[in-house]
Amino acid sequence: MTSDTKLDKVEHAMQPDDTPEIRALYRAFADEHLMPLWTQLGDLMPVHPKPKAVPHVWKWSRLLPLAKKAGDLIPVGRGGERRAIGLSNPGLDGNAYISPTLWSAIQYLGPRETAPEHRHSQNAFRFVVEGEGVWTVVNGDPIRMSRGDLLLTPGWSFHGHHNDTDSPMAWIDGLDIPFTQQMDVGFFEFGSERVTDYATPDYSRSERLWGHAGLRPLSQLQNTPASPIGAYRWEITNRALTEQFLLEDEGQPATTAQGHAAIRYVNPTTGGDVMPTIRCEFHRLRPGIETNLRQDVGSTVFQVFEGRGAVLLNGITHTLEKGDMFVVPSWISWSLQAETQLDLFRFSDAPIMERLNFMRSKVED
Amino acid sequence: MTSDTKLDKVEHAMQPDDTPEIRALYRAFADEHLMPLWTQLGDLMPVHPKPKAVPHVWKWSRLLPLAKKAGDLIPVGRGGERRAIGLSNPGLDGNAYISPTLWSAIQYLGPRETAPEHRHSQNAFRFVVEGEGVWTVVNGDPIRMSRGDLLLTPGWSFHGHHNDTDSPMAWIDGLDIPFTQQMDVGFFEFGSERVTDYATPDYSRSERLWGHAGLRPLSQLQNTPASPIGAYRWEITNRALTEQFLLEDEGQPATTAQGHAAIRYVNPTTGGDVMPTIRCEFHRLRPGIETNLRQDVGSTVFQVFEGRGAVLLNGITHTLEKGDMFVVPSWISWSLQAETQLDLFRFSDAPIMERLNFMRSKVED
Amino acid sequence: MTSDTKLDKVEHAMQPDDTPEIRALYRAFADEHLMPLWTQLGDLMPVHPKPKAVPHVWKWSRLLPLAKKAGDLIPVGRGGERRAIGLSNPGLDGNAYISPTLWSAIQYLGPRETAPEHRHSQNAFRFVVEGEGVWTVVNGDPIRMSRGDLLLTPGWSFHGHHNDTDSPMAWIDGLDIPFTQQMDVGFFEFGSERVTDYATPDYSRSERLWGHAGLRPLSQLQNTPASPIGAYRWEITNRALTEQFLLEDEGQPATTAQGHAAIRYVNPTTGGDVMPTIRCEFHRLRPGIETNLRQDVGSTVFQVFEGRGAVLLNGITHTLEKGDMFVVPSWISWSLQAETQLDLFRFSDAPIMERLNFMRSKVED
Amino acid sequence: MTSDTKLDKVEHAMQPDDTPEIRALYRAFADEHLMPLWTQLGDLMPVHPKPKAVPHVWKWSRLLPLAKKAGDLIPVGRGGERRAIGLSNPGLDGNAYISPTLWSAIQYLGPRETAPEHRHSQNAFRFVVEGEGVWTVVNGDPIRMSRGDLLLTPGWSFHGHHNDTDSPMAWIDGLDIPFTQQMDVGFFEFGSERVTDYATPDYSRSERLWGHAGLRPLSQLQNTPASPIGAYRWEITNRALTEQFLLEDEGQPATTAQGHAAIRYVNPTTGGDVMPTIRCEFHRLRPGIETNLRQDVGSTVFQVFEGRGAVLLNGITHTLEKGDMFVVPSWISWSLQAETQLDLFRFSDAPIMERLNFMRSKVED
Repeated sequence: MTSDTKLDKVEHAMQPDDTPEIRALYRAFADEHLMPLWTQLGDLMPVHPKPKAVPHVWKWSRLLPLAKKAGDLIPVGRGGERRAIGLSNPGLDGNAYISPTLWSAIQYLGPRETAPEHRHSQNAFRFVVEGEGVWTVVNGDPIRMSRGDLLLTPGWSFHGHHNDTDSPMAWIDGLDIPFTQQMDVGFFEFGSERVTDYATPDYSRSERLWGHAGLRPLSQLQNTPASPIGAYRWEITNRALTEQFLLEDEGQPATTAQGHAAIRYVNPTTGGDVMPTIRCEFHRLRPGIETNLRQDVGSTVFQVFEGRGAVLLNGITHTLEKGDMFVVPSWISWSLQAETQLDLFRFSDAPIMERLNFMRSKVED
Repeated sequence: MTSDTKLDKVEHAMQPDDTPEIRALYRAFADEHLMPLWTQLGDLMPVHPKPKAVPHVWKWSRLLPLAKKAGDLIPVGRGGERRAIGLSNPGLDGNAYISPTLWSAIQYLGPRETAPEHRHSQNAFRFVVEGEGVWTVVNGDPIRMSRGDLLLTPGWSFHGHHNDTDSPMAWIDGLDIPFTQQMDVGFFEFGSERVTDYATPDYSRSERLWGHAGLRPLSQLQNTPASPIGAYRWEITNRALTEQFLLEDEGQPATTAQGHAAIRYVNPTTGGDVMPTIRCEFHRLRPGIETNLRQDVGSTVFQVFEGRGAVLLNGITHTLEKGDMFVVPSWISWSLQAETQLDLFRFSDAPIMERLNFMRSKVED
Repeated sequence: MTSDTKLDKVEHAMQPDDTPEIRALYRAFADEHLMPLWTQLGDLMPVHPKPKAVPHVWKWSRLLPLAKKAGDLIPVGRGGERRAIGLSNPGLDGNAYISPTLWSAIQYLGPRETAPEHRHSQNAFRFVVEGEGVWTVVNGDPIRMSRGDLLLTPGWSFHGHHNDTDSPMAWIDGLDIPFTQQMDVGFFEFGSERVTDYATPDYSRSERLWGHAGLRPLSQLQNTPASPIGAYRWEITNRALTEQFLLEDEGQPATTAQGHAAIRYVNPTTGGDVMPTIRCEFHRLRPGIETNLRQDVGSTVFQVFEGRGAVLLNGITHTLEKGDMFVVPSWISWSLQAETQLDLFRFSDAPIMERLNFMRSKVED
Repeated sequence: MTSDTKLDKVEHAMQPDDTPEIRALYRAFADEHLMPLWTQLGDLMPVHPKPKAVPHVWKWSRLLPLAKKAGDLIPVGRGGERRAIGLSNPGLDGNAYISPTLWSAIQYLGPRETAPEHRHSQNAFRFVVEGEGVWTVVNGDPIRMSRGDLLLTPGWSFHGHHNDTDSPMAWIDGLDIPFTQQMDVGFFEFGSERVTDYATPDYSRSERLWGHAGLRPLSQLQNTPASPIGAYRWEITNRALTEQFLLEDEGQPATTAQGHAAIRYVNPTTGGDVMPTIRCEFHRLRPGIETNLRQDVGSTVFQVFEGRGAVLLNGITHTLEKGDMFVVPSWISWSLQAETQLDLFRFSDAPIMERLNFMRSKVED
C-alpha cells in the first residue's frame, strides 16, 4: 500500500539553509524544551513500522546450559526475586526487551528452591517446554507445572514458585514488562518470603472450578479482565489440535489452514484473550507445510515445543529445533516451514494492537 | 417495595356514572378501535407481575407412560414433525405453553424411528433424564444423546433425530415457542425427510472442535449468538459439580451457597448464555439443604434429574422425584428442599429479561 | 426464502384415524395438562410470522374529537391515572394493544388539569403532533411539551403531567405494555397526587445537562439502559433532517435513500436505542418519493406529523394526513408514498427483536 | 498501598560476589543476547510508576513568539509537512515527546499558506486557544478552526490545513506519536500537495450530519472507532459548562465537584472517548476553587484556555495564564487552583490505560 522509500525520496520543502537566524531559532527551541517536527518527521512517522527491534532466534541448546550455570552461581531470593534470564533483542540495546512490548525469559529453579511471592501490575505467564516438579502458587492456589502447560499470573496476583523435587527445572516466562515500563503503569509489592502453600496437588483450585468446557460456576458470574484459569494443560491442548487434524482428514472445517491446526487460549468469562495485553496460542503444522508469508502490526514470540523446521524472517531462513525461541517484530515478514510435525507455542501483544485499533496485517497468497 | 393491594384499594377517581353520554362515548371508542386506559389499568399495569400462568408440577411417572402410549398410537413423520407432548400450563388455557415464554415437552422416539429434519427461528434444546440410543443431527453433525446430556439446536439450525436402537427413548425438549408465537417472530422450513447423516459417533464434531476448556479454535474467532457446542455431556457437568462440593469441603469459595453447587451452561465465544432467549443451568443440593425463598421476574422450569425432595411454590409444598418437572411463573415465590442429594436441570427465559432490562429478584434471608 | 403455503400443503404423516384409543390418549393428555405438538404445529411454528394483529390506520380527524369528548366526560385522577385512549388493533380483540408488543394512545389533558405521578416498569414516551402547554414531570424534572417534541419516561421513572394553560392539549403515548403484560414483567407504584414540581421552564434539567452534541458531563460517566435526555426537541430534529436534504443536494452521503432523510433518537451514553424495548425515529420524504416495499420482523407504528401521502399495507393503499396513525405488524409488507413533503414519527419494538437475535428484513429492489 | 522505598531498602539476596565465574557468566549472557532480571528488577518493575518524564509547564508567552519566528524563517510544505513545534519533555531527552504516549505541538500557519494533505495511523486533534481563519480539510470535508474549538483527525484520515486570511494563526496539535513510535504501529501516506477543497463553510459536513444532540443519522448506524464529528465548537462546550454551574446553583447534581464543571468530548456512536488512544475534556473552575490532590496512571496535558490560577505538580506550585500548557506524567500528584474563573482544555492517554486494564487513581480527600 505504501512505498517503503516514499518519504525518503520526497523533495523536502522545509529544510531552510543553515543561517545564523535558523541556528538562533533552534537554540531558542532547545532552551524552551521544544523540538520542531519538520526535522525529524521521517523517524517519528515512518511510512510503515520500522522497528528498532530485529528478528532474532535464540537456540535452546545455548539457553539451557546458561540457565543451569546461573543455577549454580546465583542464589534465588528476595530482592532479585527470580532466577530469570531475559532474552534481549539485539536491536534494543541495553534493555532486556524481546520487543517494545514483551519480555521473555528462561527461568530456572534448583532442587527444593523457592522463589518468593510478590505481585505486580505486569501480566505474566509461564510456558513449560520440558521438565516438571515446580508448583507456582497464585493467590494461594498451588499450580503444578508440567511439560506443555501454560500457566497464568495476571496483573496484581500474588505468586511464587517452589521446586518440590531433587532435580532442577526450567521454563519460560512471558510478561508485558517493556510495555508497562515505557508507559509508566507498573506497581509492585512484595508478598511472603516463602510460598503461602507448599501443597502439590495435580490440579489447582482454579482448574477444578473452571476447567469444564462450556460450564460456568454460578458463583462466578462476574466477568474478569484476565482468565480465571490458572493452568491450561498440555493434554487438553494436544487433544484439541489432534481433533482438528482428524476433522480435517474427514473433510470438515476445523484447521486454520490446510495442514495447520491452531488454538487460542482464552478467558472463559468472555471468550477473549487470556490477559488484557498478551495473546497466547499454540500452533501445529503437518510435515512439509509452509505457512503464507505475512506481516502484522505488533510483535510476537514463538517457542518450538516439538519437531524440526525453519522460520523465514525478513527473507532469511533460520532452522528450528525443540526449545528454540524467536521474535518477530512489528511488520517484519515471516513464514513457518515444518520439516517434521512442528508444534509451536506463541505469544504476542495483539490484544494491545486490537483494543487500540492499530492492528493491520498483510498476507501473501 | 410495592403493596400487593395498593392499586385495588385506591379510590378510583376516573369512574364516571353510567350515563347515556358515557355509553355513547364508549361505543364510539369501540367503533374506532379504541379502548380507554382508565377502565383496565389494574390489569394492564399491576403493582407486580400477576401471571395467568400458575405454578404446576408434572410427575414423570405419569408423563412417561403417556409418551409410550403415544409411541404406540402416533406415527412420527413429516407434517407433525415430532412426537412431542407439550406441558400445558393450567393457567394458560388452550395453549401448550408451560409459561408465556417457554415450551417444554416430552419427546418420544421408537426403535429405529426417524424424526425428519427441519429448521425454525425458535431456539431449542434437549435434556436427557434417562435412556440413550438416539442421535440428533444438527446442521449435518450427528450428536449422541445420553442420560444427563444437554443438546442445543439454536434458531435456524437444521435438525432431526433418529433412534439407532431397538428400544424407545424419551427426553425433554425446551423451546421459546410461546415467546416467538406471541411476538410474531418465527420462521420455519422443512429439510430432509431422513436425517442427513446416520453415523453414530460418540462425540459430535462440534464437541471435538469446541469441547476443550479455555481453548478456542483459531478458525472460529467470530462470536456467535448461540453456543457452537452441540452437546454438554453429563460426565463434565457431574465433574464440575463434584469439584464444587470438594472445594467447599476444603473451605474454598466455589458453591453458590452452602451445600448448593450449580453451573450455568455457556456459549464459549462470549461466556454468556447458550442461546439468546434461554438460560440453562444444573443445580445440586446436599441432603437437607433448603434454598432461600425467592421471587424472580420471568419464568423458569426445573426437571429433577436424580434424588428426592420438595419444592415450595407460592406457599404450597410439592414432593419431587426423578423426572418430575415444575414451572415457576414470574414473581411466584419458590424454594427447594433436598431430602437426598438432589440434582436438578433448570432452564429459564432470564436472557430475555436481562437483555431487555426487566430482571428483578427478591430473596428472603 | 420460505413458501407461504409449504407447511399447509405437506402430506401430514402424523394424523392418525380417529379411534377410541386415540380419543382416550388425547383425553389423558388433557387430564395431565399436556398437549401434543403434532396437532397444532402449523399454528405454533408457521413458515413465517402470521400475526393476528392486522395493519390498520387510525384517522386523527376521528381520534381527536373523541379525545375531546372524553375530556368533557371523564375526570382525570388517581386510579385511572391518565385520560389515555388506547389504539386497539382490530386483530387483537379485547386488548388495547396496537401490536403484540406495543401500546399507543392519544392522551388528553384539559385546562389546568394534573395527571398524578406514578412509576412502572413499562417504558414510555410521548410525542406531540400539535398543541403545547403541558409539562411532564419526570423524576422531579419538569419537561415542556411542544409540537414535534419526543419525551421519554423510561421504566421505573416517576412521572406526571400538568396543563399550565387554559386550553386543552392532546398528544400520543407509546409504551411496551403488551409486551410487559404478556411476559409478566411489570411493576407499578403510585407517587404524588399532584406533580412534584409545577415550574414551567423552557428546558428540562436533563436537556441542560445532556443536550450538547458530542459532550458528556464528567459527572455522568456511568452508562444507563435508557437515554438520560428527557426531551428531543423539534427544532433539533427538523434541523438534522433539513441538513440531510441539503447535503444530499450537494451530492454528499447523508440520507438513508434518495429523497428520504431519517434520524434515530438515541441514548447518548451508548449511541443505541433510547429505551431497551422501543426504537424511535423520524422520517422525511420529499414529494413524490416512494419507499421500497419491505417486510420486517417486529411491529412498528407511524404517525404523520405533517404533509399528505399514502401507505401501502399488505397490498392496500391508505391515504394519510396530518396526525393519522398506522401500525405495521410483523412481516406485513409496507411502503410509503409522499404526495407533499411527508414527515412521519415512527416507533417500533426493533430493540427487542435485535437483542434477542430475531430481526430479519426483506426489501424489494 | 505500596511504600515508595520498599524495593530499594530490601536486603537483596541475589547479588553474588564479583568472581571470575560470575563475570564469565554475565559475559556469556551478553554474547547470547541475554540479560538477567535480578540485576535490574527495581528499574523494570518499580513499586509504583517512576516516569522519566517530568512535570513541566510551558508558558504561552514564550511559545507563541517562537512559533511566529518559525513562521518567518521556515517555509511550510511537503516533506516536513507541518510547521509544528513539539513540546519536548525535559525528562525524555532527545525526543519531542511530551510524555511516553503523547505528542503536543504548537502549529503555525502564515497568511494564505497551505499545509499539504497526508494521512497516518496516529490519531490527532487540534485545539484552538486563539485566532481563526484556518480550515482543516479532513477526508475532503473543510472544517473551520476558531477559538475554543476541538477538531479531530482520527487515524488514517487524510487531512491538510490552509489559511484563508491575511493573518497568521496558531493552535495546538495533540497526537499519540510517542506511543505509536515506541510500539511500532504507525503507517504514513502522502496525499494532495494542496488541500482538496478550499471552501470555507461555517460548519463542516460532519457537524451538519452529526451535530444534533441525541439524534443519529439513519444512514450511519455502524459504530466507528473514532468520533465522526469533525469539530466540537466552543459555543456548545461553553453552553454545557455554563448550564452545569447554573444547575449547581439550583442545587441540582451536574458538576463533577463543587465549583468544578467538566465535560468529556465523546464519540456519539458509542458514548466513549473520541479516539481509541486519546481522551479530551474541558474543565471549568469557579474562582477560589482548589481541586483534590490526585495521582493517576497515565499522562495528561492541560492548556489554560482562559483565566488565571496555578497548578501544584509534585509539590511545586506553578502559576498559570492563558495559553500555558503543562504535562502531568504518570502517578505524579497534581491539583488545580483557580484564582479567577479558570477554563482548561485537557487531553490524556486514559483510553489506553483503561482498555488495557492499567488505570489506577489515588485521590486525597
